[in-house]
Amino acid sequence: MLIEAEDLRGMMLMTLRKRGAPEAHAALQAEVLMEAELRALPSHGAQRLPRLVSRIDRGLADPAASGAHVWARGGFLAIDGQRGLGPVVIEAATAALGEAARRHGIALAAIRNANHIGMLSFYAERAAGQGLIAIVLSTSEALVHPFGGTEAMLGTNPVAIGIPTEAGPFVVDLATSAVSMGKIHHHALTVQAIPDGWAVDAEGNPTTDAEAAKAGAIAPFGGAKGYGLGLAFELLVAALAGSAFAPEVRGTLDDLHPANKGDVVILIDPGARDGEAGALAGYLERLRQSRPAEPGQPVRVPGDGARARRQAALQRGIELPDALYDTLLRLAAA
Amino acid sequence: MLIEAEDLRGMMLMTLRKRGAPEAHAALQAEVLMEAELRALPSHGAQRLPRLVSRIDRGLADPAASGAHVWARGGFLAIDGQRGLGPVVIEAATAALGEAARRHGIALAAIRNANHIGMLSFYAERAAGQGLIAIVLSTSEALVHPFGGTEAMLGTNPVAIGIPTEAGPFVVDLATSAVSMGKIHHHALTVQAIPDGWAVDAEGNPTTDAEAAKAGAIAPFGGAKGYGLGLAFELLVAALAGSAFAPEVRGTLDDLHPANKGDVVILIDPGARDGEAGALAGYLERLRQSRPAEPGQPVRVPGDGARARRQAALQRGIELPDALYDTLLRLAAA
Repeated sequence: MLIEAEDLRGMMLMTLRKRGAPEAHAALQAEVLMEAELRALPSHGAQRLPRLVSRIDRGLADPAASGAHVWARGGFLAIDGQRGLGPVVIEAATAALGEAARRHGIALAAIRNANHIGMLSFYAERAAGQGLIAIVLSTSEALVHPFGGTEAMLGTNPVAIGIPTEAGPFVVDLATSAVSMGKIHHHALTVQAIPDGWAVDAEGNPTTDAEAAKAGAIAPFGGAKGYGLGLAFELLVAALAGSAFAPEVRGTLDDLHPANKGDVVILIDPGARDGEAGALAGYLERLRQSRPAEPGQPVRVPGDGARARRQAALQRGIELPDALYDTLLRLAAA
Repeated sequence: MLIEAEDLRGMMLMTLRKRGAPEAHAALQAEVLMEAELRALPSHGAQRLPRLVSRIDRGLADPAASGAHVWARGGFLAIDGQRGLGPVVIEAATAALGEAARRHGIALAAIRNANHIGMLSFYAERAAGQGLIAIVLSTSEALVHPFGGTEAMLGTNPVAIGIPTEAGPFVVDLATSAVSMGKIHHHALTVQAIPDGWAVDAEGNPTTDAEAAKAGAIAPFGGAKGYGLGLAFELLVAALAGSAFAPEVRGTLDDLHPANKGDVVILIDPGARDGEAGALAGYLERLRQSRPAEPGQPVRVPGDGARARRQAALQRGIELPDALYDTLLRLAAA
């Protein structure tokens, strides 16, 4: 089913309004999901809405809440998300944080008790668009095994970094897992084998069977280094947000539990210094022009692919599975 | 040549004193190099001293300088390293930053014009030992090719993260390259082939010949993700420190140029919030107890190996190549 972006947005908006979301909250939640679809990141797109609606219906998500802010220090914003929608809570945090970052040079928000924030790059890109460097971290249910281990003990613990350049925001957004659980589910659905090294089964044996992997654990990306990084993020977020560790995290993949993962945002004002960093875009251009591994396949800078996919989807529409489209239509009507 | 840690320290101290380093500066520089040796990280150890001495002799390193501090904002310390010794400049930065982090919750130092800071984990571990979360970044000469590219365009751009736990500091320290250039030099010296995927030669072709790799470029770790992360660090440090991009960086691998890379330190006070994060060490212990991939080889937490190696080396001594020992002896006497 090919659907225009604005039609998808409209359906999601209608659904959220009917569940009591204030207009601005509904608009933001719909936009985050739609932007993921536009970038061909369906695991963070419209397929998240049915579960979110169920969470609202069960009182696990409060579409009217935007989080309670306490400035623990002048540069440290401690937030109880009050079960609010993830994008709403983090956007309110980022707005408050921006002011503090411009005043102090750097500021941090640590959030617990908010629902899933979706694609991290959304927030990093916004902040960079406003001239601020952003580092965004989020934790999740236990899906990833330690390097040298076989049990799911860590979240996928993504990080997004946004940096303003003269040619617009540079944004990188990556999970510290070798692959997303969404991709493994997609392989299971379409009955494809997964590549070696992605995952182990429930007994801890390496597997290429996507169904078996769903019950097992995903490898960290980049071996010991990716494990170390993902673990550092796990500890950092829990220490600052007072949120749960992965084995106890619930509420982003189910509609039965409050969301007890954590989110951390750091904003930095690069203009605090003398602002000599005028050559960022030029350096990125030199990277693109540098010698490629495959002739005719230019080197890319993170974000180049997502930008191109977004442009194409705005023209051509968004491809949604028929079953998901039907569900979204039903939710919007109900 | 097996040498006791204290003897190695003494030789290096003597050398630095004779080049005009104030006692505290000499002690710190010697300690950073010695701690790398104790952790079996010779690429960041005593072998760096001869070049540093040459840099001092040529006026490219000033052993008396500790950096000029300007608080661009209350949480943003802009530092001109004044060609000081890397450890001295970053230690002075971290001391000033610690106070600001406790006051504001978070603070950042951006440093240019300092010499090589050595092993990043040294500073992250110290800060964590004082109850602060630390993120340390540093850039370098161009040694790493972009994912999908073949030219050395990025630094090895390491990151260290230190986090206080009830059982002492957790520290992870990793370069965003698949391997260090030091390791490739070691393979070249010992005429060993390097594994597939580590590097390309000067023409951009994948190589297992360590000599050819020295003239080429190292792969980023973890494919596109490691590339994205290393690139984000490259931009972030340059934007905040006003330092050079990798292709123009000089002065950490030579004794001909001023060091124009950048360093960034972020300190966060986890005690700013209510301090519920009492379970960090318990979670790390659960990781160690989780099911290993190889029976009898327990899962490790970053830092476990380094700590064990350090203990062993304190007992047994540090293994130095004879030629390096002779050089160090000559420098200490000269």
